[in-house]
Amino acid sequence: MTAGRTNKNLHAVIMAGGKGTRFWPLSRETFPKQFLKIIGEKTLLESTIERLHGVAQPENMMIITTSNQSELVRWQTKETISPDCVIVEPEGRNTAPAIALAAFRIRKENKDALMLVLPSDHHITRLAAFEAAISEAVAGAAAGNLVTFGIVPDRPETGYGYIKSGKTVRKNLFRVESFVEKPDARHARVFLKDKSYLWNSGIFVFKAQTMINELKKYMPDLYKAFSGIEKQLGTDQESAALKNVYSRIKADSIDYGVLEKSKKVFVVRSDFGWSDVGSWSALGEIVKKDQAGNVVLGNSVNMDAEGSIVFSSGRLIASIGLRDMVVVDTSDATLICPRQRVQEVKNLVEKLKETGKQEYLLPKTEERPWGHFAVLEKGPGYQIKHICLKPKARLSLQMHNHRSEHWIVVSGIAKVQKGEEVFYINKNESTYIPTTVKHRLENPGMIPLKIIEIQSGEHLGEDDIIRFDDIYGRTKQ
Amino acid sequence: MTAGRTNKNLHAVIMAGGKGTRFWPLSRETFPKQFLKIIGEKTLLESTIERLHGVAQPENMMIITTSNQSELVRWQTKETISPDCVIVEPEGRNTAPAIALAAFRIRKENKDALMLVLPSDHHITRLAAFEAAISEAVAGAAAGNLVTFGIVPDRPETGYGYIKSGKTVRKNLFRVESFVEKPDARHARVFLKDKSYLWNSGIFVFKAQTMINELKKYMPDLYKAFSGIEKQLGTDQESAALKNVYSRIKADSIDYGVLEKSKKVFVVRSDFGWSDVGSWSALGEIVKKDQAGNVVLGNSVNMDAEGSIVFSSGRLIASIGLRDMVVVDTSDATLICPRQRVQEVKNLVEKLKETGKQEYLLPKTEERPWGHFAVLEKGPGYQIKHICLKPKARLSLQMHNHRSEHWIVVSGIAKVQKGEEVFYINKNESTYIPTTVKHRLENPGMIPLKIIEIQSGEHLGEDDIIRFDDIYGRTKQ
Repeated sequence: MTAGRTNKNLHAVIMAGGKGTRFWPLSRETFPKQFLKIIGEKTLLESTIERLHGVAQPENMMIITTSNQSELVRWQTKETISPDCVIVEPEGRNTAPAIALAAFRIRKENKDALMLVLPSDHHITRLAAFEAAISEAVAGAAAGNLVTFGIVPDRPETGYGYIKSGKTVRKNLFRVESFVEKPDARHARVFLKDKSYLWNSGIFVFKAQTMINELKKYMPDLYKAFSGIEKQLGTDQESAALKNVYSRIKADSIDYGVLEKSKKVFVVRSDFGWSDVGSWSALGEIVKKDQAGNVVLGNSVNMDAEGSIVFSSGRLIASIGLRDMVVVDTSDATLICPRQRVQEVKNLVEKLKETGKQEYLLPKTEERPWGHFAVLEKGPGYQIKHICLKPKARLSLQMHNHRSEHWIVVSGIAKVQKGEEVFYINKNESTYIPTTVKHRLENPGMIPLKIIEIQSGEHLGEDDIIRFDDIYGRTKQ
Repeated sequence: MTAGRTNKNLHAVIMAGGKGTRFWPLSRETFPKQFLKIIGEKTLLESTIERLHGVAQPENMMIITTSNQSELVRWQTKETISPDCVIVEPEGRNTAPAIALAAFRIRKENKDALMLVLPSDHHITRLAAFEAAISEAVAGAAAGNLVTFGIVPDRPETGYGYIKSGKTVRKNLFRVESFVEKPDARHARVFLKDKSYLWNSGIFVFKAQTMINELKKYMPDLYKAFSGIEKQLGTDQESAALKNVYSRIKADSIDYGVLEKSKKVFVVRSDFGWSDVGSWSALGEIVKKDQAGNVVLGNSVNMDAEGSIVFSSGRLIASIGLRDMVVVDTSDATLICPRQRVQEVKNLVEKLKETGKQEYLLPKTEERPWGHFAVLEKGPGYQIKHICLKPKARLSLQMHNHRSEHWIVVSGIAKVQKGEEVFYINKNESTYIPTTVKHRLENPGMIPLKIIEIQSGEHLGEDDIIRFDDIYGRTKQ
């Protein structure tokens, strides 16, 4: 799309604040869906950014996330998005505050800015159609409207909200007649036949100024809260100001707060192969199925399965006679659920909390004398760990024959020995340890040192550690 | 029961040669069902032995097993059965050869011996009724008959073979009219109404001499094979003689080979709360169910489950809406299967072989610089490991604050340092390491040292290893 690329006023705002409960146990509270490589080699967040290359200029990309996810967001986007463009909400408050924050921040930079707001964890297959739809939306938004994207349904889906489109404005741009809650099966079938009903994609385009005007009208408290800190936005006082504001404002969706009330809401009738990847069952829509309608990913043997989703992170799943079931296996927990009931996984996660099994909401942690680590992700030839070193802790002087390691400090300070060199790396800095280079990691500080380690190599076993010196006495001869 | 206890001629022969495929993934090829604590604190084998305390004298107990299981059998029975009474078949050949071997061996000791032959992995709830049934069977067997135990059905079971009882001999003792294969559902319902049909329990009583006579008549090859090595039985030439015999004889069940043909077969009509624990679904018959008819053992959260069996060895199983399903989770594999199809688990195990996943037929192994180990079982306060040390391998000099360890050498020779003492232990010998005693295990030999380690204590983590000296350099400061 050239319209977007040449439109210097278009800012892309990626909302990356998902809780990740619906993809439990693969996603966890600190590792939600957008960080997962569910489909292909890229995470959903990485794919979302890549998809915008032809739409917005790199300096006009912004990610809004929450503090507990900001480290991972910064790390996953370090090659595509400037760390300054990762905006951190102190806590998630649904979409309205996130969009308000983005609108005020972007208007401060550019009074004429247009904003494309989109979730970080959706899947889109037809890029050209996506770009074309954005072009149409941009035209509508430039005229002072809030433009949504309505997806032409291809099945009687009960898991999505719908937009009823009204009068044609031009070509694929319509006025919105109403927003419709997730329907029951009967209504979903009616909507599928009636061409005016579209799936609500949760993607929007509008001018920052338009949104701010509508916020003033329909969400005056939120408007006031952000107007009051406009001066601090984008400065080093922003973080404190946001903490103050977020302690007061309530959670609300932009749909409920603005879109369902505003008179300026348009919809672009779109068909770009969209899925919100809203549940395990959605894999059936976006991943190639076998002849019996199963999506099978990972290590499993399934005798006589039909219409099922079987996902293993490494351990073996062995099944007989699965019928429309979802089975998801991770290192510490296994989910088994009928496909029709995947929406209830969030209730199951609630139940884990109630029954004292909170540990399963976080990635599996392993304790070591120097601290602990959790494997965030493992794949062919790579592994991502979250490592935490206690103050004054010191790993062994070691080397690996088969893997290189990339370390990113996300909290604290690291003292690194790499070959003959010794140096420090601070928060958001990184270093790279090639294979066969002797190295040592140490936390010289007073607070825990947290790093993300990405190992890559053909063999990533714990047995490929040649220790030369270890304060915990684990040196190998 | 006093009849059995005072009957010095009654020998109990426990058949412990099961393959363990039907309880996969909890049971494995080298760790079959009889070694599992499926119900309560004792393994099925231990319960079987305990059940015979009032029936046969300790010196009249015999276990027949196969070479790949003999180590575990000897270890699990070391306090109840003399190691000389564990008879090892070179390979499993179904029940006929095992019973022939037992009969020839026992008759050699005692021409008048009676044999109670029973599987090692059944479950019986009513001990007094069991003992009373044996009394009746002993009376029938003493008169020169082969006496089976037929269980009064309480449901139209299609998973068992049936015995059709004929003329009454006395009280609960009947002639057998015929043996009936596992029926279909319709026939099973007919059998349930017709009082003459009983479940074939696979438990028998007969004189050793009677069985030998019947073998001569109906299985002459098998008779000849064992007659030919009678002199070697019970001597140090037995093992070689058995190897020779077993390389020639074919696998056959005693039911097919003798019982279905003999004219001397009686049945004791019995009702002692019997189950063959033949599949995961059988847990539903012998373990207390919750209100929705589920058997839930181990770490799981099951929303809205009905009629299901959920068994976890430690990891979390989280389910929604299970209906008559079996879910079994172990450290390396998870089974999911409708209850009605548990008989197919053995096919699934076959499929694992075909698809190159043989590793899941053995307990999960962890590699270490000195060799490897597999956790055979883990429970509150104890853990059983199979440990293999390479020749010349030497573990660290270490101690544990929270656990004691019991080591049994099952192959090779071990050099043990325990406190200030250093000594050797040979195959089938053991030693005990109390908490806080410094110890070291070494393989001074030329072949792998295999030991069974039983850890007990309140905390069994790998972090409770205080290392003083370690050739692999893992000493802790």
